[in-house]
Amino acid sequence: MTEQFPSRLLESAVNEFASLPGIGKKTALRLVLHLLRQDGAVVENFGNTLIRLKDNIIYCKSCNNISDTELCSICSNPVRDQQTVCVVENIRDVMAIENTHQYKGIYHVLGSIISPIDGIGPEDLTLDVLEKKVNTGLVSELIFALSTTMEGDTTNFYLYKKFDNKDLRITTLARGVSIGDELEYTDEVTLGRSIVDRTPYEDSLSK
Amino acid sequence: MTEQFPSRLLESAVNEFASLPGIGKKTALRLVLHLLRQDGAVVENFGNTLIRLKDNIIYCKSCNNISDTELCSICSNPVRDQQTVCVVENIRDVMAIENTHQYKGIYHVLGSIISPIDGIGPEDLTLDVLEKKVNTGLVSELIFALSTTMEGDTTNFYLYKKFDNKDLRITTLARGVSIGDELEYTDEVTLGRSIVDRTPYEDSLSK
Repeated sequence: MTEQFPSRLLESAVNEFASLPGIGKKTALRLVLHLLRQDGAVVENFGNTLIRLKDNIIYCKSCNNISDTELCSICSNPVRDQQTVCVVENIRDVMAIENTHQYKGIYHVLGSIISPIDGIGPEDLTLDVLEKKVNTGLVSELIFALSTTMEGDTTNFYLYKKFDNKDLRITTLARGVSIGDELEYTDEVTLGRSIVDRTPYEDSLSK
Repeated sequence: MTEQFPSRLLESAVNEFASLPGIGKKTALRLVLHLLRQDGAVVENFGNTLIRLKDNIIYCKSCNNISDTELCSICSNPVRDQQTVCVVENIRDVMAIENTHQYKGIYHVLGSIISPIDGIGPEDLTLDVLEKKVNTGLVSELIFALSTTMEGDTTNFYLYKKFDNKDLRITTLARGVSIGDELEYTDEVTLGRSIVDRTPYEDSLSK
């Protein structure tokens, strides 16, 4: 279906929104019409925010996280344990872990994970900064916190092979039954793993 | 859940997207991260399109449709029948009807429909332009093409009372079973209406 837009300006705005992932032409039109109902200042602010975003955003030179400053607020925080580095795929994972308030180390954001089907190889990850950091000898533990997908597992294994010869602990997130989940609905791989990796009952009481 | 954003710039961009209808914080973050992966020119173009959109868009002075010019391409088209005016709520309805290629008249875009619950009364619709057009005596038919909701019906009735004393035909869209629909799944109001308003079989053959 080719839609006839009554205005080229409208059409180009709709096309911009429709270029975003998960937004089709109909939704894009709905969003643009919503913006047209707002004050001019609101829409102008939206546009200017986008322009400033790309021009001014910085990636932390230490961990590759999105930042307003050269060193992000986590890397530059003296309270954080600089010896423990949690390797994640992207900033959303950083935010998810930060929200738990359980982690006091720093991060390394890969930016992507190895995915041959998408043409993403190890050279597309931000590994040189991580390697440099590990080579200083100041890192005592690397935590792999990638998704449990084929791509995540591949990346984990690649990183493991790369850093295994260094003098550091390599760990990964605990897998097990989600808190609040019913046993009968837990998939068998996870349930199997949770039996093999069972922990002392007393440990669960103190958490 | 209050999310800790590592960058104010990122946070403001996420907030802009999250202010759009149907887009939550998580989706907004996904969209912004997508934009950050694009070329600077792409994002700048997005921003500039939004700024130009609000500054330069024009509403057709004759029908209130969104337009690039004072008179929209439909109103200024000499082939269109200027005596038949189809009254719709918004530009999406215009596009939907245009896509059928069955309508050769012009439109009038109300911009909204009467909805007391949202505080929208008759004075919020663009009725003076429509009234002026009807008063010229050049309009022979008004087609009500509003949604079949309580608000749509209320607006229809208000318009009917307003224009009933004028010398013109007032019609509304035919209601009936959708083409391709199975009878057993058609709601009873629609099915009932389609029996009362049944049409000669020969008529359906020629369409």
